[in-house]
Amino acid sequence: MKLGEQEVSGLSYIEQKRLLVDSLLDKYLPRANSYPQMLHQAMRYSVLAGGKRIRPILALTTYEAFGGHNDNVIHPAACALEMVHTYSLIHDDLPCMDDDDLRRGMPTLHKKYNEATAVLAGDALHDIAFDLLAGSGSAAAVKELAQAIGTYGMLGGQMADVEAEGQEVSLEQIQYIHTHKTGALIRASVRIGGLLAGVNEKTLARLTQYGEKTGLAFQIIDDILDVEGDQSKLGKTIGSDCKNEKATYPGVVGLAQSHDDANQLIDEAIAISREFELKDNHFVILARYIGQRDN
Amino acid sequence: MKLGEQEVSGLSYIEQKRLLVDSLLDKYLPRANSYPQMLHQAMRYSVLAGGKRIRPILALTTYEAFGGHNDNVIHPAACALEMVHTYSLIHDDLPCMDDDDLRRGMPTLHKKYNEATAVLAGDALHDIAFDLLAGSGSAAAVKELAQAIGTYGMLGGQMADVEAEGQEVSLEQIQYIHTHKTGALIRASVRIGGLLAGVNEKTLARLTQYGEKTGLAFQIIDDILDVEGDQSKLGKTIGSDCKNEKATYPGVVGLAQSHDDANQLIDEAIAISREFELKDNHFVILARYIGQRDN
Repeated sequence: MKLGEQEVSGLSYIEQKRLLVDSLLDKYLPRANSYPQMLHQAMRYSVLAGGKRIRPILALTTYEAFGGHNDNVIHPAACALEMVHTYSLIHDDLPCMDDDDLRRGMPTLHKKYNEATAVLAGDALHDIAFDLLAGSGSAAAVKELAQAIGTYGMLGGQMADVEAEGQEVSLEQIQYIHTHKTGALIRASVRIGGLLAGVNEKTLARLTQYGEKTGLAFQIIDDILDVEGDQSKLGKTIGSDCKNEKATYPGVVGLAQSHDDANQLIDEAIAISREFELKDNHFVILARYIGQRDN
Repeated sequence: MKLGEQEVSGLSYIEQKRLLVDSLLDKYLPRANSYPQMLHQAMRYSVLAGGKRIRPILALTTYEAFGGHNDNVIHPAACALEMVHTYSLIHDDLPCMDDDDLRRGMPTLHKKYNEATAVLAGDALHDIAFDLLAGSGSAAAVKELAQAIGTYGMLGGQMADVEAEGQEVSLEQIQYIHTHKTGALIRASVRIGGLLAGVNEKTLARLTQYGEKTGLAFQIIDDILDVEGDQSKLGKTIGSDCKNEKATYPGVVGLAQSHDDANQLIDEAIAISREFELKDNHFVILARYIGQRDN
């Protein structure tokens, strides 16, 4: 599908939010010249290396769509999600885990510094996320994040991913890995935006489904890009899933079916968002962006 | 100093609280047979290996001393502190950090399982701590913990400790390491008990001082025990600080001065607690216990 006018303005909405998130992350991260400098520099290196900022943008979009208007609440909460995402990447890249050398076109943190600093910087980002999220004043939002990234969420998916290496996996297993390792945090990003805006139970349930569908589509496309993507755009080594004998969605159902499933999930997410009857439906723009991304 | 009658009943108070904390930790930890089993078993292995439970006991004692009586608030909060403490030990023991083989008389987690599981189990305990603490309903308590164990607290001390290995350190540096690496979480344990009980600013300030003094004494005694202690009681290798060229308090001021300083800190902490004019002053019992412990 060619990008039409709506998508161009869509990219512009996303670009605008991304710039906001980048500046907020810079603001909330500890200064590089404050003690312990090396740890702060390592945290900044990883977080400010770029990225789509999709999780904070989902939280901001949801919060604002449902009438939230207190930047002091949503700005730290949105950034908390990116801090967590970056922590998970740093620990994921460690030699004892995926042992990756390249991330966003740059050396991974343990390559740039050393393993001890990478472990501690990941821990520090994990931690600052809860500091920021607590700044929203909502213990419920803190619980939502902690559960999304715990052993019944992201860490469970991460453990399953490690265990599945080199194994034959079923569609059920790969869906477990994807909905937990990546999906749970994306789902929580939407839900935290909704919780902080004070949406009702019914809306929260629909938002949850929107988050689940875009989250699974996001990771299927990640797997597709590892096969078909452009290394210079992705900033990481193509084919690394295959090399590491990773469980992937195309590895189980094939590339054609993977494309179809991702497209269907995006269509379903868009259909859900239309039920909200919003004047400016940025959920459509975000879902399309996730469905069409090339990095 | 010989243990008198007050200390005997003191040990009994502490023992009673420790048994309570042990049973609560067992309750709050994920079941060993729920997926991902290996991760849950690893978490349980490390947390339930024993330990003095001094941080949760400090939180419980403070909460109850100032009129707190809701177990649904303080029980998860107290256990959060032990989860964090255990996460810090697991990551601290990793090969890229202190590379320790023995902890509480048992193989360290990465020796028992593997490095990937140890990294993830540490992350999972870090995470469940915030889940539990958020269960108290207090975003302020969450912020307190996150800041205590972040880069301006525990992780800053940990980084300084790593950087100081093999270096000549000053008294100022060793005090920075101790007040941050160990002191910040002990201080936060007391403060969180106070915050959840709703104490006033003045009392919170005095509690903070009590926590700072007992926290520094705790770590000085830890260093002393690494020189003079009984390996069978400690459950870890004696002399490992020296072997690892660790910055220690006796290494800077000598053993005699270390004993004097620890005793003085304990006396000061006890004096502060007397200002609270409590009917049953368990703060005295706790401070004496910290000052006289042999493991």
